[in-house]
Amino acid sequence: MKLIRFGEAGKEKPGILIGEKRFDVSSIVTDYNEVFFEENGLEKLKKALDSNPVLPEVDADVRLGSPVARPSKIICIGLNYVDHCVETNAPIPTEPIIFFKSTTSLCGPNDDLIIPKNSEKTDWEIELAFVVGKKASYVEESEALDYVAGYALLNDYSERAFQIERGGQWAKGKGCDTFAPLGPFLATQDEIADVNNIPMWLTVNGKKFQNSNTSNLVFKIPFLVHYLSQFMTLLPGDIISTGTPPGVGLGIKPDPIYIKAGDVIELGMDGLGNSKQIAVAYTK
Amino acid sequence: MKLIRFGEAGKEKPGILIGEKRFDVSSIVTDYNEVFFEENGLEKLKKALDSNPVLPEVDADVRLGSPVARPSKIICIGLNYVDHCVETNAPIPTEPIIFFKSTTSLCGPNDDLIIPKNSEKTDWEIELAFVVGKKASYVEESEALDYVAGYALLNDYSERAFQIERGGQWAKGKGCDTFAPLGPFLATQDEIADVNNIPMWLTVNGKKFQNSNTSNLVFKIPFLVHYLSQFMTLLPGDIISTGTPPGVGLGIKPDPIYIKAGDVIELGMDGLGNSKQIAVAYTK
Repeated sequence: MKLIRFGEAGKEKPGILIGEKRFDVSSIVTDYNEVFFEENGLEKLKKALDSNPVLPEVDADVRLGSPVARPSKIICIGLNYVDHCVETNAPIPTEPIIFFKSTTSLCGPNDDLIIPKNSEKTDWEIELAFVVGKKASYVEESEALDYVAGYALLNDYSERAFQIERGGQWAKGKGCDTFAPLGPFLATQDEIADVNNIPMWLTVNGKKFQNSNTSNLVFKIPFLVHYLSQFMTLLPGDIISTGTPPGVGLGIKPDPIYIKAGDVIELGMDGLGNSKQIAVAYTK
Repeated sequence: MKLIRFGEAGKEKPGILIGEKRFDVSSIVTDYNEVFFEENGLEKLKKALDSNPVLPEVDADVRLGSPVARPSKIICIGLNYVDHCVETNAPIPTEPIIFFKSTTSLCGPNDDLIIPKNSEKTDWEIELAFVVGKKASYVEESEALDYVAGYALLNDYSERAFQIERGGQWAKGKGCDTFAPLGPFLATQDEIADVNNIPMWLTVNGKKFQNSNTSNLVFKIPFLVHYLSQFMTLLPGDIISTGTPPGVGLGIKPDPIYIKAGDVIELGMDGLGNSKQIAVAYTK
């Protein structure tokens, strides 16, 4: 299944994507949230859909929200592509680097990117994200995929000055509003033939900056589930983003390139769809 | 008002503390969560209580939970007491260091501290926490206290090996389950005469390790609200913990001291009550 959420920000309804068509499943499901995943919602939804219910079609021009509701946490993996480490002059980690994005950064896949006030170094990062399907604590790597609900495309926007030049931890540069467009959809595991062989690309104003494949991941999803679950309990609906390949603005030689108002950022992964964000300046 | 939540973990009900007595207000309020604070719940509750409703009393031996429900985020400030910086050989920050605790670490004030599997360096940190009362984005320092619902005692447990020796960011050592006992209660602002002059102390097995006063804070609450709101939107119910004074296990000379199973950790702040955690080993 390919799960979507559609409608006005903050009032999204659950839906599914079949081919190019979107259908409203709000008569079957309340929302794709912690309770949904916890209570075997994916299985129940599949069963309900197997009986071919009549579902209202949703117009193609209706806004998409994040395909999952705001979770308890968004955890990201840093420097998880070998080439990205080289690009940023960082050593290849011997174990995963982890950090949180504020969950208030989550937004729809095609929502505007709001460049924060006082930002001069807003940067892009295409990533493969996965969503946790059930409560995970001290999970064995061999069983880890049982804890995964599915996969989605994420852009881990990062303000490099906030992240690196403002003292200490990365938290300041990762969690600004609209810094985590997720989707267009959440693909359940059965939709993806090989999650470790997904081509991925990102362009800014039509020019390709990132072009890689999940085959380059240093730490793969089963290990990440196992690893993270040693340090905290993962809850159903939590979003884990697995890191970005080379080609971020920070790494461009001789001079880094950052996002300015009006820039158009497009990204995609085979089988996980495309998303597009237009950068706008913060105004209030 | 002094807000409490009581009952079995995950099924807490809202209550209030009057003197030493606890009362159930679940007939007036659903829970102390994001919606409660967002919809002016504090004011409504105060009004309801002013009419002297008959409230069921809650037994003194009923478990207390965190005085607020699981929020969208727990943000902590690092190295925010001058003496603590000296103790840990860290420079005094020129602007706040911030990091997240996983919200799954939140628990009741007197719940057992579960020492994580493979932990050898679990440490304590008494802190003054505050709870956000309304949505805060780009808030002026002069108006910041309008965004504060109240204050509470927090123990920011930290696994120092996970935090410092496992690569990169602090996230791994801060968010383990039971690492954020909050309370006993949330005191609304009017309950506290001077939040910048609160004595605070922490003992382990009866021996005093931390003994300070919030007057030693480098960055105070109005500045923190202003500062944090430049990097992300704070939501009603979010917990911000302001940092710990000297006396953590990591800083003890010549050899650090860490928590072992059976240890009893007690802490308190004038006007914000006391809490007590007994350390137990993880078993499953």
